Amino acid sequence: MDNRFKTEIVTCSIKSPIRNAVISFNEMTISVIRISYLYLGKLLNGYGFCSNGRYAQNEIVLNRFIPRIINSDLNLLIDENGILDPVKCWSVYMQNEKPGGHGDRAVAAGALDMAFWDAYAKAYEKPLWKILSEQFNQNQSDEKIFVYPGGGYYYPGKGYQGLKDEFKKYQDHGYKVLKMKVGGDSIDEDLKRIDAALSVVGKGKNLCVDANARFDLTEALTFSKAIQHYNLFWYEEPLDPDDFLSHAILAEKYNPPIATGENLFSKHGLQNLLRHGGLRPDRDWIQLDPALSYGLTHYLEVIKLVETFGWSRRRLIPHGGHQLALNIAAGLQTGGSESYPGVFQPFGGFADNYEIEEGFIRPQEEPGLGIEEKSDLYDKIKEIFG
Amino acid sequence: MDNRFKTEIVTCSIKSPIRNAVISFNEMTISVIRISYLYLGKLLNGYGFCSNGRYAQNEIVLNRFIPRIINSDLNLLIDENGILDPVKCWSVYMQNEKPGGHGDRAVAAGALDMAFWDAYAKAYEKPLWKILSEQFNQNQSDEKIFVYPGGGYYYPGKGYQGLKDEFKKYQDHGYKVLKMKVGGDSIDEDLKRIDAALSVVGKGKNLCVDANARFDLTEALTFSKAIQHYNLFWYEEPLDPDDFLSHAILAEKYNPPIATGENLFSKHGLQNLLRHGGLRPDRDWIQLDPALSYGLTHYLEVIKLVETFGWSRRRLIPHGGHQLALNIAAGLQTGGSESYPGVFQPFGGFADNYEIEEGFIRPQEEPGLGIEEKSDLYDKIKEIFG
Repeated sequence: MDNRFKTEIVTCSIKSPIRNAVISFNEMTISVIRISYLYLGKLLNGYGFCSNGRYAQNEIVLNRFIPRIINSDLNLLIDENGILDPVKCWSVYMQNEKPGGHGDRAVAAGALDMAFWDAYAKAYEKPLWKILSEQFNQNQSDEKIFVYPGGGYYYPGKGYQGLKDEFKKYQDHGYKVLKMKVGGDSIDEDLKRIDAALSVVGKGKNLCVDANARFDLTEALTFSKAIQHYNLFWYEEPLDPDDFLSHAILAEKYNPPIATGENLFSKHGLQNLLRHGGLRPDRDWIQLDPALSYGLTHYLEVIKLVETFGWSRRRLIPHGGHQLALNIAAGLQTGGSESYPGVFQPFGGFADNYEIEEGFIRPQEEPGLGIEEKSDLYDKIKEIFG
Repeated sequence: MDNRFKTEIVTCSIKSPIRNAVISFNEMTISVIRISYLYLGKLLNGYGFCSNGRYAQNEIVLNRFIPRIINSDLNLLIDENGILDPVKCWSVYMQNEKPGGHGDRAVAAGALDMAFWDAYAKAYEKPLWKILSEQFNQNQSDEKIFVYPGGGYYYPGKGYQGLKDEFKKYQDHGYKVLKMKVGGDSIDEDLKRIDAALSVVGKGKNLCVDANARFDLTEALTFSKAIQHYNLFWYEEPLDPDDFLSHAILAEKYNPPIATGENLFSKHGLQNLLRHGGLRPDRDWIQLDPALSYGLTHYLEVIKLVETFGWSRRRLIPHGGHQLALNIAAGLQTGGSESYPGVFQPFGGFADNYEIEEGFIRPQEEPGLGIEEKSDLYDKIKEIFG
């Protein structure tokens, strides 16, 4: 590798007092990465970071992945134009990694892969979604992307009014389908919270609930009976993500859409969900997070896999709520993208100056991921890396 | 937590020129941990380390697990005698960890949990296997444990004679069933290597082969046909560890024993293997590694799970090849333990002065894991921690 290549990685806190049904975010961190190299005399910066939920992964990036890049023959890393190719780099930094065990390593690779794709699209002076459309999607892309805010968390003293106020704020920002956490309180209490939410969003088709894998099968079935009549947009992570068989049983009993996958981390996990999870290709949603699951590079395999199983890629809505997920949704035409207008700032959310209208948003026109077009995020990144 | 509690963690290289079918070990590292605290005026040291194969995990231990211990109420961590209870500590340091994603985090917890158990058994002044026998196995235990050396790696210039010499050395040490790597060369070449190995061990029932998840289903089936007539002790990791369905198909076609599980990392993965993997309770082997899979604390759940599925715990032979796996095998009466007489030193292998006879070994009589009774390992640990 050329000695003009440089990587920096920093742990950044995204802690907050919010809770889902299983964890508190009061110690949450992510890794933020900058790669930089000279291309045709111009300094290219690529930025990447983990999605929320699984903590910083600096050790894996610094001690395992980067040395393999640094020690690699440059020709194994670049494309025909001499640009660092994210897919080739991925193959190099994943050498000497054993099969199985898709967890923190997948998160580390997700953050690093994001930085490689950002730099790559900047080298070609195109927005990432455009590159994806041209190289992997026969020039097809979406002009506007379905987005929903991953909100409705529990926090101290929030109450029904707090939830309603939060939801009204999302509506004011142009969101239509909204999501709230469940499973962190009694069913009775959660149903009251759902009623409060419905008083704002109007009907079940505008509301998702997310149990964050809190329930066992009996609890998930009980909860599903209590909410079945609402006909919600989706019932998310009702069960342990790896308990595929219980998903199959739930899907036989609960008719409205189910969503899961944010805690699967690889195509291997997804393959098992599709084989054994009994999900329904006409209604259910798959939420693997590219920034937590070996990156966009691996997400290209995820898309191939869902299509192998006869599913439409429109059933994929990546978790993560950031510019990477949005670029993927636009350029590869998935079903949409999560969004974090209120939490995990400044990493959650999208570029400035792109309005949400009726729950849809346009992807950015600027090259790369568009990190520089989200001013609070770019300010943070300049603060981190100087 | 009491301020007399202290944790130290160091990355230690166990690199070597050996290869399996998928990775080289030329950059392999592990985390080595010492916890220490005063109990009844006596300083207790507990030592733990990762098994080989998945690299050091200091960041997860230092930044996620240890702060949760340090910040915890002491009463949540100790048993009725005021001794740090490994199971209670586990529940504390796994707080705020999301479900799913069982990989590096499981390795980090495995190393830390080992240190807690070592200190715990020392506090009670008993060998760990004795504690396990008393607390979790109705005072039953095994006086001698089946062990086999995880050897037969590929390395440059080894040749058939190198393999035979290695195997003869294992036999001289008292081992009977030996294991070699396959899948790293052509089938023809591997069959010649197997013939060379058989010329030393005599019959197929004394030989295991390990493909380290190198094959897809077609390749695994092809290889299985080529070796079926040898009737080997086992055919290990023929397939990707998470591809359960392919295991089920292989198990219908290949009659002799199959072994897998070292890259599953949790009871969740094992549950899927037992549900969907088609393995046979009368002959197949499950090799989850406690030191890579959330520790002995989680392995207690693993044992419960195999018995829920109607399997005998004798079908479990933990991967890892160290004092933890041996103590588990003795005190919880699994089917045996891997051993590393030649590789991953000084962490692989067992206490000095315990001879292997006809492939069996006695567990140590000294308190704890018996780390201090393996002199090269204890020398290394003193070198690391001073």
